[in-house]
Amino acid sequence: MSVTAAQGFTAAGIAAGIKENGNPDLALVVNHGPRLAAAGVFTSNRVKAAPVLWSEQVLAGGAVSAVVLNSGGANACTGPLGFQDTHATAEKVAAVLGHSAGEVAVASTGLIGLRLPMDKLLPGVETAAAALSPDGGEKAAIAIKTTDSVHKTAVVRSTDQAQSGPGPATGSELGTGPATAGGWAVGGMAKGAGMLAPGLATMLVVLTTDADLDAAALDKALREATRTTFDRVDSDGCMSTNDTVLLLASGASGIAPDFEAFAEAVRAVCADLARQLIGDAEGASKDIRIEVVGAASEDDAVEVGRSIARNNLLKCALHGEDPNWGRVLSAIGTTSATFEPDRLNVAINGVWVCKAGSVGEDRELVDMRYREVAITADLAAGQESAVIWSNDLTADYVHENSAYSS
Amino acid sequence: MSVTAAQGFTAAGIAAGIKENGNPDLALVVNHGPRLAAAGVFTSNRVKAAPVLWSEQVLAGGAVSAVVLNSGGANACTGPLGFQDTHATAEKVAAVLGHSAGEVAVASTGLIGLRLPMDKLLPGVETAAAALSPDGGEKAAIAIKTTDSVHKTAVVRSTDQAQSGPGPATGSELGTGPATAGGWAVGGMAKGAGMLAPGLATMLVVLTTDADLDAAALDKALREATRTTFDRVDSDGCMSTNDTVLLLASGASGIAPDFEAFAEAVRAVCADLARQLIGDAEGASKDIRIEVVGAASEDDAVEVGRSIARNNLLKCALHGEDPNWGRVLSAIGTTSATFEPDRLNVAINGVWVCKAGSVGEDRELVDMRYREVAITADLAAGQESAVIWSNDLTADYVHENSAYSS
Repeated sequence: MSVTAAQGFTAAGIAAGIKENGNPDLALVVNHGPRLAAAGVFTSNRVKAAPVLWSEQVLAGGAVSAVVLNSGGANACTGPLGFQDTHATAEKVAAVLGHSAGEVAVASTGLIGLRLPMDKLLPGVETAAAALSPDGGEKAAIAIKTTDSVHKTAVVRSTDQAQSGPGPATGSELGTGPATAGGWAVGGMAKGAGMLAPGLATMLVVLTTDADLDAAALDKALREATRTTFDRVDSDGCMSTNDTVLLLASGASGIAPDFEAFAEAVRAVCADLARQLIGDAEGASKDIRIEVVGAASEDDAVEVGRSIARNNLLKCALHGEDPNWGRVLSAIGTTSATFEPDRLNVAINGVWVCKAGSVGEDRELVDMRYREVAITADLAAGQESAVIWSNDLTADYVHENSAYSS
Repeated sequence: MSVTAAQGFTAAGIAAGIKENGNPDLALVVNHGPRLAAAGVFTSNRVKAAPVLWSEQVLAGGAVSAVVLNSGGANACTGPLGFQDTHATAEKVAAVLGHSAGEVAVASTGLIGLRLPMDKLLPGVETAAAALSPDGGEKAAIAIKTTDSVHKTAVVRSTDQAQSGPGPATGSELGTGPATAGGWAVGGMAKGAGMLAPGLATMLVVLTTDADLDAAALDKALREATRTTFDRVDSDGCMSTNDTVLLLASGASGIAPDFEAFAEAVRAVCADLARQLIGDAEGASKDIRIEVVGAASEDDAVEVGRSIARNNLLKCALHGEDPNWGRVLSAIGTTSATFEPDRLNVAINGVWVCKAGSVGEDRELVDMRYREVAITADLAAGQESAVIWSNDLTADYVHENSAYSS
């Protein structure tokens, strides 16, 4: 269902010829209102791609009528001419749909440092506009893939939010009620891998809802959601120039939901998509769930979780199914978090292999056969906690990213 | 020549049986004076191995009469009993040599979380003491190897310091004058890889000199030297629990050198050893010299250099001989350094593939065939600069570190 699960939206995904292999590479998502409220979160990388610079300005207005996304080229580090290409793309969408270019967001993903083939992209906009459909969500999700092995979508409906939550399945339908059940829905699509510092490809996410909320409420809900989902998925610590997460509201359901209920639905969809991103990370053989507990502050927990997630020696060890708790302690030791080395405890897949900063239970008891690995780091310094998701470091990762040209 | 190049020192390296494969694993370096001045720099990891905690206390006294080093076990994360093992080792050396244990430094390298086989280590101290020789420097350097493919030594003599400086050769003899030329010398040995946040193994370094200087002068010279050498070698960003760099002065030359001349000699030996460490990094196929120029401050230059050195996507690209400047810009963009994205320039092996934050000279002009890769990042924000050395990320690195058990 993706971005067309919510009422008031149409979408399309087509092959414009941007990708030389002829795969779908252009997606269009249109908000038919009555509202055009929107919020966005973008990469914190200071080297921002042209579409990010453009869309940040569009979102500042709080209204988005359409989003055009392309794969096959990031339009990053392309200078003033690259920005002109993004502007021309927005103008083309506006002209074809009869919208204002100032309300058209643009997102791009692919290689850095290459101009986009505008002679193919602009005609593709017309093709995509002609293909817009209330059932176009799946095709749009497929068109934004780069190195993704599968497309990624998720939906939560107001009629059964209690059942919502992160799930490992791809394209999981968290809600079961039909779109016309009289409630409201939050749907979304994602491509790439990792948090707003993704490692393997740019992360592009478009979320839609037919709930009736203004831009300020959307912004609050989106920032709360991304802070604990996309921002805590760290596949390899690298940060992209193009990361974009958008939330569009049509108000088509006519329902103005309780804010907390809505925020939870947005969080659930983001968590589901984030988990799908980690599960599809390039070259990975393990999905690593790092839970830091007993922290003096949430910031401490996140800092420690990230340090563990980014330790190449540990990532290699986990790939080798070696419950190497010494490397976990080494990673914790590089942080400024509050802890005493001789009070640290570490569990791997439930076995407390490190107690009081030293040898704990028998490491032979740790079962490392499964794709998901759970690391619990207890700082014994407080009551705060955080979960960071990561991947292992593999020869396949090296191969895919040493072959992947600039 | 190693640690016995300077007058007043003897050393030994023997196989005590700590390593199951029977390779040399215990080294002893003794200062016969007349001075026993010493300085030390240790890992900044907050999880410190027992020998680091012990030696930090010894060095606080400014006098070291002997250093005992073992490979085959890091004695890290071994709790109070591990500290007792280190203490017992120092006491054994003191008893055998007739020294005070409070002047015996201890260093260990190997796996984390394992107790040392004291039943083999303590008798080994007696064997090593019996083998002490003015020519024992090479054997000591060999005995501290873990995954090192070669042992690493360097010497600078006062008689020809002008010729000193970093060099790629292993065991390079920077000076040519004999030890008895009437001048003074600085010699040293190293094992491991990488800065004081080494990636692949603990870095242990012992430097000796027969110059007549007090502990304060040694400390100043050593900190100045490590700040721009070992601290700027970053193989994979991971930080060890055991890193130790010691400088011992015997005063045996009877010469109190000009401080700046001495400091330069120490820096030259450290630079030479640091370059050897990078050249022998586990699994690496490229040695990457990252020079950041045009920085507003030296701190900015170092922060940017480290960010580039730690970018896994770039390290993979360089392994694939892909001059991927986009990943260099992405890494720069994650820092807090002063720069404008549209003013960044990047050269790879002399070709300015990125100019003004966008496409520059033809990337096809970059010759990536050689082991050494030179990246120059111009922030166009000032006059400061810094050089960081790193390695590429390879399938061999993954293999060696996924097989390497905790």
